[in-house]
Amino acid sequence: LDNTALHEFTDILVFLLHADPNMVNAGDMNGSGNLMDFLDEPFPDVGTYEDFHTIDWLREKSRDTDRHRKITSKSKESIWEFIKSLLDAWSGWVVMLLIGLLAGTLAGVIDLAVDWMTDLKEGVCLSAFWYSHEQCCWTSNETTFDDRDKCPQWQKWSELLVSQSEGASAYILNYFLYIMWALCFAFLAVSLVRVFAPYACGSGIPEIKTILSGFIIRGYLGKWTLLIKTVTLVLVVSSGLSLGKEGPLVHVACCCGNFFSSLFSKYSKNEGKRREVLSAAAAAGVSVAFGAPIGGVLFSLEEVSYYFPLKTLWRSFFAALVAAFTLRSINPFGNSRLVLFYVEYHTPWYMAELFPFILLGVFGGLWGTLFIRCNIAWCRRRKTTRLGKYPVLEVIVITAITAIIAYPNPYTRRSTSELISELFNDCGALESSQLCDYINDPNMTRPVDDIPDRPAGPGVYTAMWQLALALVFKIVITIFTFGMKIPSGLFIPSMAVGAMAGRMVGIGVEQLAYHHHDWIIFRNWCRPGADCVTPGLYAMVGAAACLGGVTRMTVSLVVIMFELTGGLEYIVPLMAAAVTSKWVADAFGKEGIYEAHIHLNGYPFLDVKDEFTHRTLATDVMRPRRGEAPLSVLTQDSMTVEDVETLIKETDYNGFPVVVSKDSERLIGFAQRRELILAIKNARQRQDGVVSNSIVYFTEDPPELPPNSPHPLKLRRILNLSPFTVTDHTPMETVVDIFRKLGLRQCLVTRSGRLLGIITKKDVLRHMAQMANQDPESIMFN
Amino acid sequence: LDNTALHEFTDILVFLLHADPNMVNAGDMNGSGNLMDFLDEPFPDVGTYEDFHTIDWLREKSRDTDRHRKITSKSKESIWEFIKSLLDAWSGWVVMLLIGLLAGTLAGVIDLAVDWMTDLKEGVCLSAFWYSHEQCCWTSNETTFDDRDKCPQWQKWSELLVSQSEGASAYILNYFLYIMWALCFAFLAVSLVRVFAPYACGSGIPEIKTILSGFIIRGYLGKWTLLIKTVTLVLVVSSGLSLGKEGPLVHVACCCGNFFSSLFSKYSKNEGKRREVLSAAAAAGVSVAFGAPIGGVLFSLEEVSYYFPLKTLWRSFFAALVAAFTLRSINPFGNSRLVLFYVEYHTPWYMAELFPFILLGVFGGLWGTLFIRCNIAWCRRRKTTRLGKYPVLEVIVITAITAIIAYPNPYTRRSTSELISELFNDCGALESSQLCDYINDPNMTRPVDDIPDRPAGPGVYTAMWQLALALVFKIVITIFTFGMKIPSGLFIPSMAVGAMAGRMVGIGVEQLAYHHHDWIIFRNWCRPGADCVTPGLYAMVGAAACLGGVTRMTVSLVVIMFELTGGLEYIVPLMAAAVTSKWVADAFGKEGIYEAHIHLNGYPFLDVKDEFTHRTLATDVMRPRRGEAPLSVLTQDSMTVEDVETLIKETDYNGFPVVVSKDSERLIGFAQRRELILAIKNARQRQDGVVSNSIVYFTEDPPELPPNSPHPLKLRRILNLSPFTVTDHTPMETVVDIFRKLGLRQCLVTRSGRLLGIITKKDVLRHMAQMANQDPESIMFN
Repeated sequence: LDNTALHEFTDILVFLLHADPNMVNAGDMNGSGNLMDFLDEPFPDVGTYEDFHTIDWLREKSRDTDRHRKITSKSKESIWEFIKSLLDAWSGWVVMLLIGLLAGTLAGVIDLAVDWMTDLKEGVCLSAFWYSHEQCCWTSNETTFDDRDKCPQWQKWSELLVSQSEGASAYILNYFLYIMWALCFAFLAVSLVRVFAPYACGSGIPEIKTILSGFIIRGYLGKWTLLIKTVTLVLVVSSGLSLGKEGPLVHVACCCGNFFSSLFSKYSKNEGKRREVLSAAAAAGVSVAFGAPIGGVLFSLEEVSYYFPLKTLWRSFFAALVAAFTLRSINPFGNSRLVLFYVEYHTPWYMAELFPFILLGVFGGLWGTLFIRCNIAWCRRRKTTRLGKYPVLEVIVITAITAIIAYPNPYTRRSTSELISELFNDCGALESSQLCDYINDPNMTRPVDDIPDRPAGPGVYTAMWQLALALVFKIVITIFTFGMKIPSGLFIPSMAVGAMAGRMVGIGVEQLAYHHHDWIIFRNWCRPGADCVTPGLYAMVGAAACLGGVTRMTVSLVVIMFELTGGLEYIVPLMAAAVTSKWVADAFGKEGIYEAHIHLNGYPFLDVKDEFTHRTLATDVMRPRRGEAPLSVLTQDSMTVEDVETLIKETDYNGFPVVVSKDSERLIGFAQRRELILAIKNARQRQDGVVSNSIVYFTEDPPELPPNSPHPLKLRRILNLSPFTVTDHTPMETVVDIFRKLGLRQCLVTRSGRLLGIITKKDVLRHMAQMANQDPESIMFN
Repeated sequence: LDNTALHEFTDILVFLLHADPNMVNAGDMNGSGNLMDFLDEPFPDVGTYEDFHTIDWLREKSRDTDRHRKITSKSKESIWEFIKSLLDAWSGWVVMLLIGLLAGTLAGVIDLAVDWMTDLKEGVCLSAFWYSHEQCCWTSNETTFDDRDKCPQWQKWSELLVSQSEGASAYILNYFLYIMWALCFAFLAVSLVRVFAPYACGSGIPEIKTILSGFIIRGYLGKWTLLIKTVTLVLVVSSGLSLGKEGPLVHVACCCGNFFSSLFSKYSKNEGKRREVLSAAAAAGVSVAFGAPIGGVLFSLEEVSYYFPLKTLWRSFFAALVAAFTLRSINPFGNSRLVLFYVEYHTPWYMAELFPFILLGVFGGLWGTLFIRCNIAWCRRRKTTRLGKYPVLEVIVITAITAIIAYPNPYTRRSTSELISELFNDCGALESSQLCDYINDPNMTRPVDDIPDRPAGPGVYTAMWQLALALVFKIVITIFTFGMKIPSGLFIPSMAVGAMAGRMVGIGVEQLAYHHHDWIIFRNWCRPGADCVTPGLYAMVGAAACLGGVTRMTVSLVVIMFELTGGLEYIVPLMAAAVTSKWVADAFGKEGIYEAHIHLNGYPFLDVKDEFTHRTLATDVMRPRRGEAPLSVLTQDSMTVEDVETLIKETDYNGFPVVVSKDSERLIGFAQRRELILAIKNARQRQDGVVSNSIVYFTEDPPELPPNSPHPLKLRRILNLSPFTVTDHTPMETVVDIFRKLGLRQCLVTRSGRLLGIITKKDVLRHMAQMANQDPESIMFN
């Protein structure tokens, strides 16, 4: 290899992996770049943001366009530059591919580990301890088809320790060990979270929504968070707590997205572009959580993302597909299916059934409201009282209660996703579940797929009251579980609540129809001997209703459910339940659980969905208010370095408008605090003659100075010459719209060309809270 | 009924159907409403737009918020007002329901009529002339299962007229009548379009995109257009021309949307809200065109819509579902399926097959580019030469050529959607098509679903060259057909081209695999006796590739195809082909066919997808340019009515900035030309004392005037006090972004608080055309 080629090769590597900072930072900000002053060499950190600050979307976009322009113009210079420009153009797809692969792999690993550890609470596989119950008996030769769950290799703890498989003492031993394992897992999880990655707790979706809307929370999507969240997620799900892994999987996928975007300068150096990657990663997360790639993309679009250009839509779809197929090739469920709860129903639904479906929608809406109110009340109590000081104890107590109550009931002892899967399933001829204990007519020989309605047997009645108990338990315990300092998702518990209620309603309708074929409501569609009611479908509709009530998802919810059933046939029942549930829940309060947690935590999130309908004007919101000290401004050519430094020291504003003079108040630009500080520091270090009484010039050409005066400091380079302005008469709804759509950080208010004040994103949020009769001071990251 | 209740009932009716104009117009525009001056009574037409003008999205939004606010505050006054507010809130859903019902019904009627008239070209049903061939033989008792197409009731024209069903003379007679019918249908269609509704021609999608982006074309979505487009669509599709009904169905659905939105004041009085309804209607249109509701919503989101809030997403989904289920209950295809080409494949695809799939993607991309270039060149020729003066003759000639060439080839004689359906289908055991004429192994008895690869019989070879001829013919004739003065869609011809190419490639790969099982590329996945290649899948992939190449759809394309096959199994081949096709086509030019037609027609459409990457500044684009006459402005308190009228007469600007004085040039607001004219006319008619030398005041409180001076005219009411401003240093990419995202009509340019100039949407479009080396003057509606 000759030296030049090697050099160019490393050049590309550097470009791909680190990027030369010049390429990005040399980008002229906001069009001022054609005016080269002596701060030619860019100083580091310009264009980055501090932690817990809001990004300026317009600026990020403009910086990316500059970058793109440079690469395009360079690409004509040489073949290497051309290849680099191609690599740059393709890096988006490469990132998506990597995210899809890693997210799919992690989801598969989590699924396998959860499977094994959940079974570990009950027993162990003697032939290979790393096998789960199912794998253990699957590989055993001695398993009969009828009793797939029993094989000699799989031993319950009581069999292994005291050689007893039945009897009260064996039961108690198993019970005790079940609780111990659960406590052990939960303790390990909460300790790991507390010690290594405090950001790994919760579902992560409220924070991801906030981050995607343009807020910086350093470390929230870091490598440690990724690692710890993955590990602890396995632990908490295995511990049997009432939580799911779906929400946290979105967080995990976003961590993957953040990791891979940090490898490519195009994304790592631009907070706006990085958020495009994160939106796609969220889609990949939902895609692997449910095996629903289209639903995942719509979830990201509807629920999580803020800025979602069409290019991102297509890439998200790609990432979601790659993730789903990676997961399928790992095949953790052993059924070659992409989806978690694959179901196939054999009978259509009838118009009359819409009534129970809508009832389930009402139930879902009410449960959603109840859950949100109670959970928020409990979380507020945790934040404000001494309770919050003992997170480990809290987790231990809740885990103990969960395990103690859950073990005796077969519907709460097993993992929640298995429970949902069983509730969704139609009762085929071979089904051995208690829920399918119907009394068969011995004279009837029918194909497997088409079993007519039958009277319920004793097993079904037992199942009914066990389900009822399990439902009450789930409803109560989930309120206390969601929000603890461990990773916890809400999708699965909500779906479980809905599925249990739905299945019970379904069995009720089925039995009613069987015993009263002649009733007018059944007569038209449910003749004797027909298979007319599918209780599993009711479970699915109930699950959709509850999930909709809690999260207020709409299209994405229906599409996810549609992907689970794989047919348009059942989309009307699902939609009826989802619409009802959303309307009922919205009647009690517009906020979904994620928005409620965003408000609780005071994240500066400007919701795209909220409509601002009050008649206030910009002048009512801007600072300074009447009677307050005048706005701190810089003048373009009359302040010294010392004046500027004093102003910076005395205020904590993030930026200062620059005006022609204090008298005329005519605006010429806006300077960021961070960049002012960096520029002055840099100038003092590197430029001779810049001293405290040097004049700071923001003008294009500083005037000739007398020879003995100090060297001037020209700062036009850091001046944003196109600050966003509105007039004082602009209605606030327009201002809110502008902040939302353009992703501004601040906006200046003028009247007849004179600067009057400033509105920041936090001012807008504070004002909106005030209008909604909330405490405006809660809008702060705290 | 007592009188008050009756009165209140009619009140509600009026409210629902017409709305009292006061409620809408009394809405204070842009926050100036709290300053009531003596123009209290609103004059009519304020807040409407002229034909071929651009709407101001921000203003429409603000007006709707005002309306909403009024209804909300009124709703607390009485129970009736509360019910009215509820009805208002629900009217959106009602409109969606109505659109879904009407669009579904129209689609069903069109399908049935096309079916009948297509068959009418070949023969007639003696038992009932309004039966199509299939219905005729279906109702006949004498039909055998083997020959479902033959029954004595259905008579070809030759049988009926000269009692001959075979032989050369019968063939020639049928051929002749086929051409005559086609000419007759086409002539009728083009005449109807020319006489009654010139807007009914074309696919309508370019115009709908333009309208949805905020342009006014009166009558484009009118009732006449709806009626004529529906009728002529049936005629042209039946005439056998190479066009489809899918694109025009979107136009038809949008006409329905426009019709229903005109019934509700919430939508009829607000151009912004109306466009939300139209977006949903477009989704319903695609939903019924393909039977793909989710795909329809994504199509509307990705391809057609401009402003698509999440609320619209959910409503669009509802409209799309209602439309799809209405169509299904009409059941025009007789198969109880929602989708046009329902297919089910029984074999998976293999990794090695990705290579031919990607090849098909390349073909699709190349065909897309070729088609767009040739079609645009031909359409430009039609616009600029004498050709355009004879639209009827053009249609007649093309129809004649199509009919003459199409009749002898069985693959072009039948309707294109039937052709596609046959090409998509897998060869089952019962398939009688020529394409399924394989040589069966007599020793092999296998289940119906699992037929191994077989050698092709003579029928397949015949089919191959007939398909090749049909392919060439379709490629050429479609270029000349799309753009004629008749309704014409592009989806079906593009899909047909792709499906023919795909099927041929599929059969080729299948035969290659059958004869060369030992080749290294086949050895791993295609053993002898296995069913490894599905030619129908290749046809589907090819169709997706060609459709993608022409329209540049991405996610919606894949989702529509996914809904057709109903399984995630084949999403990877489809996606591979769609991605390749888009990349290949984009390499030759970024524009899809719809954007190309928008540019050709010079519609003022600001594409959301185009990225503007040039480094120009607002100062380079604004008017007046250097050396031009200064900007025409109004002053706030020094111009007379006559001055203003002269200014209006001498210029044709749509609005004028209002400044403090001509010297200071400090901006205080913006007045629309239309509203100035209306206000002055109104004041002259109704207010005493307003004469030509009355002073026009835009200030809040006009000074006390001397007693003998003429009565002043106060116009603050029509003044927009929050005009949008940017500084002259703002990069154009930011300006373009602002225009796109906020949907502005114009934007004022300032420097240090002084008004410098104005940028209108057309200026932006002109500048973008200039930067792309196009003729800037083509950006005009012409």
